Amino acid sequence: MSISPPHNDTHNVILAKETPMPLDCGTTIGAFNMAYCTYGELNAEKSNAILVCHALTGDQYAASRQPVTGKDGWWNMMIGPGKVLDTDKYFVVCSNVLGGCMGTTGPRDIDPATGKPYGLNFPIITIGDMVRAQALLQDYLEIESWFCVIGGSMGGMQTLQWASAYPERVFSAIPIACAARHSAQNIAFHEVGRQAVMADPSWQGGDYYASDAKPRAGLAVARMAAHVTYLSEAALHRKFGRNLQDRENLTYGFDADFQVESYLRYQGINFVDRFDANSYLYITRAMDYFDLVEDHGGTLAKAFEGSNTRFCSVSFSSDWLFPTSENRKIVHALIAAAANVSFVEVETDKGHDAFLLETPEMFKTIQGFLQSSAKSRGLGE
Amino acid sequence: MSISPPHNDTHNVILAKETPMPLDCGTTIGAFNMAYCTYGELNAEKSNAILVCHALTGDQYAASRQPVTGKDGWWNMMIGPGKVLDTDKYFVVCSNVLGGCMGTTGPRDIDPATGKPYGLNFPIITIGDMVRAQALLQDYLEIESWFCVIGGSMGGMQTLQWASAYPERVFSAIPIACAARHSAQNIAFHEVGRQAVMADPSWQGGDYYASDAKPRAGLAVARMAAHVTYLSEAALHRKFGRNLQDRENLTYGFDADFQVESYLRYQGINFVDRFDANSYLYITRAMDYFDLVEDHGGTLAKAFEGSNTRFCSVSFSSDWLFPTSENRKIVHALIAAAANVSFVEVETDKGHDAFLLETPEMFKTIQGFLQSSAKSRGLGE
Repeated sequence: MSISPPHNDTHNVILAKETPMPLDCGTTIGAFNMAYCTYGELNAEKSNAILVCHALTGDQYAASRQPVTGKDGWWNMMIGPGKVLDTDKYFVVCSNVLGGCMGTTGPRDIDPATGKPYGLNFPIITIGDMVRAQALLQDYLEIESWFCVIGGSMGGMQTLQWASAYPERVFSAIPIACAARHSAQNIAFHEVGRQAVMADPSWQGGDYYASDAKPRAGLAVARMAAHVTYLSEAALHRKFGRNLQDRENLTYGFDADFQVESYLRYQGINFVDRFDANSYLYITRAMDYFDLVEDHGGTLAKAFEGSNTRFCSVSFSSDWLFPTSENRKIVHALIAAAANVSFVEVETDKGHDAFLLETPEMFKTIQGFLQSSAKSRGLGE
Repeated sequence: MSISPPHNDTHNVILAKETPMPLDCGTTIGAFNMAYCTYGELNAEKSNAILVCHALTGDQYAASRQPVTGKDGWWNMMIGPGKVLDTDKYFVVCSNVLGGCMGTTGPRDIDPATGKPYGLNFPIITIGDMVRAQALLQDYLEIESWFCVIGGSMGGMQTLQWASAYPERVFSAIPIACAARHSAQNIAFHEVGRQAVMADPSWQGGDYYASDAKPRAGLAVARMAAHVTYLSEAALHRKFGRNLQDRENLTYGFDADFQVESYLRYQGINFVDRFDANSYLYITRAMDYFDLVEDHGGTLAKAFEGSNTRFCSVSFSSDWLFPTSENRKIVHALIAAAANVSFVEVETDKGHDAFLLETPEMFKTIQGFLQSSAKSRGLGE
């Protein structure tokens, strides 16, 4: 096992320099920056590359110190020497999504047409666009096919989109805690978050970059509302119950009497330091628009027709945002498409967030699947 | 069956005029107004009175035209001649809760100490305080015991509090879709709503009554966030799914492309016309603080020890805000206290809101329970 030094550096590459990349909204985007981190070494055959797709508020720092928060990468427990995504064997790539705010071009970057930040002039991005941009990164890295594409939540949506749009470029795919289309309830929660941002006068129609006032309060509320949905009722009860925060008795006021209130406020306040409010609008919108069923004439199986990709679908029993029933629909479609698929519902009370947490059954499932896929791919031990 | 004319009028009575009423927070409140509506006639024995307790955003207009919205009362389908709460037989009373904004004294009323609206100087109100104030109304009406106390959601909490605090004044009790203590998840959702209000600069620390700027945007966001929790995933899917609003295709923008977005925005915008933002803070806080278990040394059964009240507990299978498991805890405690209790989980996909909707199984359950209770009480047909 090699000992790799901490790897904080983001690589940057300008993509679609000569030919602008078409977007689903009908326009194009050209010469955009893609920020990505890599872990491990690409082998000579270029057959050991894993693409990790991040979730709504994630970034490319999957296993590196996040430069704003100073915290470990969001999938540090999954990626590294000897870990599930073993960097002694695999070359792991994680890029910030198009429309994001950690380096890949997004609404806070300069619009070459005006010389000012895009704001709401940034084109609406879809999950398809995010994946199209990642495919340009794949070309740039001269990787013919990913050994595996993997991700949870919106990362799982990207994984499904990859397998559907570029089946020949994806040897195996692990969509976790996701859906083939965003539900009405989830659109509703996203709309609440967007309205919270837009209700903040400091948002200024999205044109706040040159201003001292930033829509921090609105974005914090959006984050708080979303955060409740990431946890299960059982996890909230176990972690907080009705416990009071640093006090013996109720204060009969609007302070954070309860630990759960204090926790939520902390989540909201911390988020705004590392995330751009407009990116939050764009990325939630991308998730709302995701609908592989509609994209394939109402039959999800058509999204995966003739696919040679090996699939492993993972869901969590207490995830009510992307419940197991949604993953089952994906699995049924894959079976109908005669694809190679395995499916595990992990028993946990941790809710949707389980994919980001110490979840041994998930680790074991993914490790086993990767080992068998590596064997099929002819990757030596 | 008598034909009663539409009854819009609120009665008003000043309570606690001579002796201020103690509040759970440790202070007192004196000479406060209580606004209430009545339907039907009180019989000579004063034995046919039903107290209807309203939910978070409800009011006394249970079966009267709401003067601000012009809409029918929120329980119009339950209350009236020949209906479940049959006004040919029963005298139905519904009062606006203490801390409310439809006539009963609340944060937008004048603080006699300053001559200005209370705002955040209004004392924190609990469910216990709301019920204590209703008990003063009961005294005023010279009704020794309610034939029945009934309510859904926060109305159910008041119903439980009534039965616990004043067992001899409650012949029968119907708590619907509620809990004996507010869960961590529900406190979390309330905190999101409060933070949305408080994040609105027009809220001005609660001192906005004399100002042109009102925290409408923040309150609308709070209402939207809450509204998602009142519906089930299944109901949202059935009603809206991913249907588009008055358009054939996605617009690739932040307009309300989806019907569910348009519906939510409508809910938010309409709410702010009829509700005071500070009342929203106070009443959500009252629900958060509700904990009959803690109030009785950790044993819920003690809340109902020796009770002669007849109980009928109703829950809804798709209610995830106050799930059936919470109602079961109430029923188990009542059984442990040797109380007379029946329990029905109504099968419906309508979510928490089912108690406000055409839900035939709920109607039938309550009607049957009231008939048998009326017989026990010696109320003639």
